[in-house]
Amino acid sequence: MKITLKDGSQKEYDKELRAIDVAYDISEGLARNCMAARIDGEICDLRTVIDKDCSLELLTAADPEGLRVLRHTTSHVLAQAVKNLYPEAKLAIGPAIDEGFYYDFDMQSLSREDLDAIEAEMKKIIKAGAEIKRFELPRDEAIKLMQERGETYKVELIEDLPEGETISFYEQGDGFVDLCAGPHIMKISKSVIKAFKLTSSSGAYWRGDEHNAMLTRIYGTAFASKEELEAHLAELADRKNRDHNKLGREMQLFTTADVVGQGLPLLMPKGYKIMQKMIRWIEDLEDNEWGYERTKTPFMAKPDLYKQSQHWYHYKEGMFVIPDPSDPENEDKMLALRPMTCPFQYYVFKATPHSYRDMPHRYSETSTLFRNEDSGEMHGLTRVRQFTLSEGHLIVRPDQMVEEFKNCLALAKYVMQTLGVEQDVTYRLSKWDPANKDKYIGDAETWEKTQQHIRDILTELDIDFYEADGEAAFYGPKVDINTKNVYGKDDTVITVQWDEYNAELFDMYYIDEKGEKTRPAIIHRSSIGSYERTLAWLTEKYAGKFPTWLCPEQVRIIPISEKYFDYAEKVAAEFKKYGIDHTIDRRSEKMGFKIREARLDRLPYMVVVGEKEEADRTVSVRSRFAGDEGVKPLQEFIDDICEEIRTKTIRQEEPQKDEK
Amino acid sequence: MKITLKDGSQKEYDKELRAIDVAYDISEGLARNCMAARIDGEICDLRTVIDKDCSLELLTAADPEGLRVLRHTTSHVLAQAVKNLYPEAKLAIGPAIDEGFYYDFDMQSLSREDLDAIEAEMKKIIKAGAEIKRFELPRDEAIKLMQERGETYKVELIEDLPEGETISFYEQGDGFVDLCAGPHIMKISKSVIKAFKLTSSSGAYWRGDEHNAMLTRIYGTAFASKEELEAHLAELADRKNRDHNKLGREMQLFTTADVVGQGLPLLMPKGYKIMQKMIRWIEDLEDNEWGYERTKTPFMAKPDLYKQSQHWYHYKEGMFVIPDPSDPENEDKMLALRPMTCPFQYYVFKATPHSYRDMPHRYSETSTLFRNEDSGEMHGLTRVRQFTLSEGHLIVRPDQMVEEFKNCLALAKYVMQTLGVEQDVTYRLSKWDPANKDKYIGDAETWEKTQQHIRDILTELDIDFYEADGEAAFYGPKVDINTKNVYGKDDTVITVQWDEYNAELFDMYYIDEKGEKTRPAIIHRSSIGSYERTLAWLTEKYAGKFPTWLCPEQVRIIPISEKYFDYAEKVAAEFKKYGIDHTIDRRSEKMGFKIREARLDRLPYMVVVGEKEEADRTVSVRSRFAGDEGVKPLQEFIDDICEEIRTKTIRQEEPQKDEK
Repeated sequence: MKITLKDGSQKEYDKELRAIDVAYDISEGLARNCMAARIDGEICDLRTVIDKDCSLELLTAADPEGLRVLRHTTSHVLAQAVKNLYPEAKLAIGPAIDEGFYYDFDMQSLSREDLDAIEAEMKKIIKAGAEIKRFELPRDEAIKLMQERGETYKVELIEDLPEGETISFYEQGDGFVDLCAGPHIMKISKSVIKAFKLTSSSGAYWRGDEHNAMLTRIYGTAFASKEELEAHLAELADRKNRDHNKLGREMQLFTTADVVGQGLPLLMPKGYKIMQKMIRWIEDLEDNEWGYERTKTPFMAKPDLYKQSQHWYHYKEGMFVIPDPSDPENEDKMLALRPMTCPFQYYVFKATPHSYRDMPHRYSETSTLFRNEDSGEMHGLTRVRQFTLSEGHLIVRPDQMVEEFKNCLALAKYVMQTLGVEQDVTYRLSKWDPANKDKYIGDAETWEKTQQHIRDILTELDIDFYEADGEAAFYGPKVDINTKNVYGKDDTVITVQWDEYNAELFDMYYIDEKGEKTRPAIIHRSSIGSYERTLAWLTEKYAGKFPTWLCPEQVRIIPISEKYFDYAEKVAAEFKKYGIDHTIDRRSEKMGFKIREARLDRLPYMVVVGEKEEADRTVSVRSRFAGDEGVKPLQEFIDDICEEIRTKTIRQEEPQKDEK
Repeated sequence: MKITLKDGSQKEYDKELRAIDVAYDISEGLARNCMAARIDGEICDLRTVIDKDCSLELLTAADPEGLRVLRHTTSHVLAQAVKNLYPEAKLAIGPAIDEGFYYDFDMQSLSREDLDAIEAEMKKIIKAGAEIKRFELPRDEAIKLMQERGETYKVELIEDLPEGETISFYEQGDGFVDLCAGPHIMKISKSVIKAFKLTSSSGAYWRGDEHNAMLTRIYGTAFASKEELEAHLAELADRKNRDHNKLGREMQLFTTADVVGQGLPLLMPKGYKIMQKMIRWIEDLEDNEWGYERTKTPFMAKPDLYKQSQHWYHYKEGMFVIPDPSDPENEDKMLALRPMTCPFQYYVFKATPHSYRDMPHRYSETSTLFRNEDSGEMHGLTRVRQFTLSEGHLIVRPDQMVEEFKNCLALAKYVMQTLGVEQDVTYRLSKWDPANKDKYIGDAETWEKTQQHIRDILTELDIDFYEADGEAAFYGPKVDINTKNVYGKDDTVITVQWDEYNAELFDMYYIDEKGEKTRPAIIHRSSIGSYERTLAWLTEKYAGKFPTWLCPEQVRIIPISEKYFDYAEKVAAEFKKYGIDHTIDRRSEKMGFKIREARLDRLPYMVVVGEKEEADRTVSVRSRFAGDEGVKPLQEFIDDICEEIRTKTIRQEEPQKDEK
């Protein structure tokens, strides 16, 4: 029996043995550190018995899959600790997740103190140590075992498995048994589970369904070393501080109110100022540099419109529908809030006749959209029921399609670069699934040709991208620009969509050179995505220290005393003339206090003015980038900051000598 | 018996006589021309018998009240003509109105040809001539008479009158009788009814209630002379051409679509460009010059919010309510689109604590509002279901109220002046009704004091205004700025509202000098009103020839031939640098055609470029204001138009010698 190891070397054995035995055969150190095995490509228990030729990889916590197994076992230790402390708690499920693990229990909700107590109990269990055993039972016996132990959620899980299936369990220590497919590490020991932490708890519906019971979920994480754990916890704290849902409220960018409702944030003056700067920038960029025509179309329409666009049949659940109270079932009297702008812009196109000469039409709108998100999914400015999208539809002749599609991507790329987030996004070419041709309209040749066009465009624009089958819309391929939020969650920020389908649905046409009605093609696209989401993203990206051009307050003028209020006013008048957003701090506080506060407010610039500055018409400049920047003539400071704003420069912070 | 005439002279008679007899006594000419009498201040028939001392004014068509009587009688002639031609038609009502009269009939709808035929029949009746007689019947007999004639609408009208009332009728010619309170002229004759016209017909619900039958309304007008009638008809034609609902579509400012729905216009690129210019102007004006803080709050909220604001109890009919489809009666799961921004901005205020030092807060929002207008009331951009309001709420200390209220009015006045519509608005001080004190909260002293404050402010701002009792909100007085639309219909464009009530409802407070919680006062206000309505208003005011700064296309560059496209591009690049909205007309059409078309497009400027212009870096300027303005250096033209745009100058059209 030959076992091929990862490095290509082979081991030969003349009788069957467990994966862990091979590890011991290689080195005791490896055996101590490995968490699981990959046998012929499949992640397995180290307990797995090998009885024929295979490839074997022994996974330590340095392998992502090994780390997942360590975390999964730690979640079982958590479950055991909870059962020790709260015998009445019922077990639901406890998987490893991207950055740790969780376990759901039917029990009371928990405070931080409760989590600390559970953590202490886990340490006790780990210190005592225990072998972990795997055993299997027929389905009926498995149900009986769980019923005896009162684990009704586990019973429900087993009942969902097919008849005749054999069910696996893991047992650790004296009698803690959990229904589990595994794999798990060989034993609980403080030399293996040496760095873990319970991070938080929250409510979670059983099976994620809001009609089910609300359970208590405990989140935790585990690493191979204390150092890795501490680095991770420090990053979590940083993320928490950057979380726009926390920082955005602290900075008074937005607020929420129970009586207004979930997913309906109120942008406060500072938050809207940032959004306004983005909106005007994008509108002018699109209209003046890229030839867009701006529309403003209504936020609701009769079902007729959504029937024509097919949304009524495929997306009604996500729409807000307004019935006529006196005739609520009558669709002719209903209105529905729009989840997208497409058909409205099509009707702008259709309002006038078109010739091949006046094509393309690039419609864009700073568009309000509404989506009826589940209440459990609402979050800050990113998962909301109403948002503002820079939404455009290019209606083009087929021969203009490649050029226009390229320009859409070039614009999106330019916007990402200008916001300083180009490094944080990935471009995905979302293709059809050739294995499921019947889910798509159009023939294979057209799909492949169009996808090749997009591939060429991305290459020409020097954009790194990856390809994904089965991610296209049913009527055409697209490019998705994705990023991760502060918690590592994927978000699509921009989509550019190739569409040769809707012009037919909406009977759109232009008159070609021969005087014949011809169908245009359509590009659905955004240049910056949702403004609310972008505001959230930039808040997290810059931890609230926005690039100067976006700051709601770009300079604070700090007069040394009341005597210099006049000069401060003169400086302010100059700033106003140049459109620099500023305030004057007239409070009778100490200078040090005012400067510290301006720093805490994350202002890019403060200018201090006193006797010398007034006499010389200068300002003493302090910035968040370089600390004390010395005294500058007022006009020079204005020229510099205007240039920084005009070019949308993102100044980097330099080490600051003078700041404590 | 002494009768005092209008000029103060007196006539004495020793026995009773009719008003018309006094007219004959003065002059036969007067008797022929007079339509009605005002006896002791009351408008009466000339048939009215005078039997005691009184003042008497004999009214001709030169008096508005006299003209009304002429028109009212003409409406009876219309009714007679309709009955002659359509014996089955039933009479409803037929009053004089501001610019003529109408009569509603239960009958088929009518074409222009039908109206012409009716007009011919009216002429026949007038030519034949007839005495008009007034008679009275007791209520029962009046009902019997109308029942006999099958006039069921008249029966309904009489049945609504109190028992025991005596009912008056007017009879003209051989048997046409109409229920009517009068007054009417003495006889039908072509020397009196000599200038009339049926202008249009439309549907109208009986008693204006959409649950009733749809009747056919015929509009007409009448004047004392053919000249006056013709001048009026010319004005009607001009108005029709200015009607934004016609002109705005022709100019591609907006469109509508049946599948989108009524009252939901789609702004096309040109229309939105004008609106965008207005929005940015108002936003910058408010924020940079008047200290406003800009919010962006959600367009919907839970009923809880509207309950707190009382809208749920008083305005629910006008709101769009979105039930949860799975639980449609549950108010906790409903959302409703907002009809106003007030409570949202209150929650922005409430999101942070406030001290007397940071007051006032002037919140403004370019706010979208939704009102569920009846389908019969929808019109163009003015009666719509969704609109964009420059809506603000100033939350101020009571001691700041007068100053802030004054600034709100000063801002509104400045906006009206800048738009060139100051002469077209009236300011109304809308006061409480001291005769109905129980409809208002607060005591008489406070009401009178507040109203005096507003009176003083209006006087100080040199604003002409009138006062109206009973037009205040129940919680405070306000100033309404009103205008008339192209059809003479009144519209309130801006309201500035004094409110010492809502801060209590929403538990809003700031901390005063003594550290105590204190209620602020609130001003509700707009600076420009609804942007859609303002766009409609300016379209009608300027007949589409908008002031240069608002034009979606400010200059069209017309190269003489293809050879000068390069120079045209250079000129365009300069325009772009200065933010001047422009296009290049590259079509291979004749020059004359292009210039004529630019004029039809109502462009303020065209610049023609050819060999000489390219060589000298000049442009040949034609304007809508002065026709051929000659050749100008390019930079001079740019400086001039930029100054015109910056200052928002409204250039007047001068007589143009060179244009045919």
